[in-house]
Amino acid sequence: MLARIALGIEYCGTGFEGWQTQPHGRTVQDCLTAAVSAIAGEHVQIQCAGRTDTGVHAAVQVGHFDSNAIRPETAWVRGVNAHLPEGVAVTWARELGDDFHARFSARSRSYRYVLHNRPVRNVLLNGRVGWFHAELDLQSMRDSVACLLGTHDFSSFRAAQCQAHSPVRTLMRAEVSASGEWFVFEFEANAFLHHMIRNLVGALVYVGKGAYPASWMADLLAARDRRHAPPTFAPDGLYLAGVDYPDCWPLPQGGRIMASAFMPPGS
Amino acid sequence: MLARIALGIEYCGTGFEGWQTQPHGRTVQDCLTAAVSAIAGEHVQIQCAGRTDTGVHAAVQVGHFDSNAIRPETAWVRGVNAHLPEGVAVTWARELGDDFHARFSARSRSYRYVLHNRPVRNVLLNGRVGWFHAELDLQSMRDSVACLLGTHDFSSFRAAQCQAHSPVRTLMRAEVSASGEWFVFEFEANAFLHHMIRNLVGALVYVGKGAYPASWMADLLAARDRRHAPPTFAPDGLYLAGVDYPDCWPLPQGGRIMASAFMPPGS
Repeated sequence: MLARIALGIEYCGTGFEGWQTQPHGRTVQDCLTAAVSAIAGEHVQIQCAGRTDTGVHAAVQVGHFDSNAIRPETAWVRGVNAHLPEGVAVTWARELGDDFHARFSARSRSYRYVLHNRPVRNVLLNGRVGWFHAELDLQSMRDSVACLLGTHDFSSFRAAQCQAHSPVRTLMRAEVSASGEWFVFEFEANAFLHHMIRNLVGALVYVGKGAYPASWMADLLAARDRRHAPPTFAPDGLYLAGVDYPDCWPLPQGGRIMASAFMPPGS
Repeated sequence: MLARIALGIEYCGTGFEGWQTQPHGRTVQDCLTAAVSAIAGEHVQIQCAGRTDTGVHAAVQVGHFDSNAIRPETAWVRGVNAHLPEGVAVTWARELGDDFHARFSARSRSYRYVLHNRPVRNVLLNGRVGWFHAELDLQSMRDSVACLLGTHDFSSFRAAQCQAHSPVRTLMRAEVSASGEWFVFEFEANAFLHHMIRNLVGALVYVGKGAYPASWMADLLAARDRRHAPPTFAPDGLYLAGVDYPDCWPLPQGGRIMASAFMPPGS
């Protein structure tokens, strides 16, 4: 009898060509499919809550698969981890009804961008955090981010190769905070367009460095034209940091699965 | 005319065979010597405050060299950084009198060990933090660390290959703190023996997991015999985090050069 298993997954995007399986690529999905299939003793297909790009990390990714194999939940964690490379790990497993779907059941995704702001590039967390060399102004970035909240056409922040049917998304949270040399950008939406957060961070950094006033963000959003926006920011500091599911499934943290890490090093 | 230049240096120990130059090794000193020599236009010799082992990081390392080259301080930072691999960077440079010596002028060194304590190995900060799978008790580790303070013969925590003339060191600070899944061990001493902190952390973890009572640490110290102590802990979570110099030199932070990072991700 088929059982549906949900997994909590962490990975460091450095060294992976993103989540989604590629014919000749080393992707998180490829590694995870091989490891879970080895434990299941049969080929499984793994779906996830948010397909991340090359170099993007997951402090919290949620996946699911169906299998005929009867295994204790610890086998889906420790057994699978024994088959995974060092950059990816399963943190928990839960057997759920087949009405649960890691992607379609999710109400929202939360992403966090961690940026180191100082003249010298980051060394200790190289690849794990973004970097910007010139001074950034927190208040102007905070002022400019508010206009993004709510339901909008986010075409100005959408990659040319985005395959979504609609550029309309609902942003429930958009915050910028700072601690010493560290800036953290947090976004929660029902879903995100391709490169949307990296494009938002790129635009916010332009405001923060003083290239544009805070009011420019609303103009950029209204323009609905990617050609008006600054370059896509590096993937290094971007983390899938949470996925929210309805309470009807017995998931960790009551369905609102949020990362306790990754936060920036304290100053 | 020879000028003496002090440098602030950060490096991620992963991928380096420690600080000290090796005939066939890729060491921090080798990289830095090549980069500084390129900017100086002559071969320079670089001394440092604390020679770290393979895999050990520096949030703060201090070095010095002598050169006939007349360069602005920014050249010793930005110019040198342009010649360094991504795992190492110079954060500041100061011209000082030749009475300053990065190693012999230092009053103390501070090291920080960052440990992730959870069943699943760390993925996002792999190589940058230590990991222990079984639950650790903070209070027993705190109780056991107090006996280490002061001047002692630390032979029980000294590597067999240690070349120091004396096993006696003065520990001014020995603290254990925790935040969620993260433990931080902090030590400050006039100097450290080879592997001393990794051996101290190894012993503290044995206490924390309940293998020995807190009082065992004092017995271990008194035994002055390495064969009684647990294995050396992994280098991954160890950071040279500060060097203290007398105030007579115009160094950043008034001579007490401490890392603002690296602290563990907040829980």
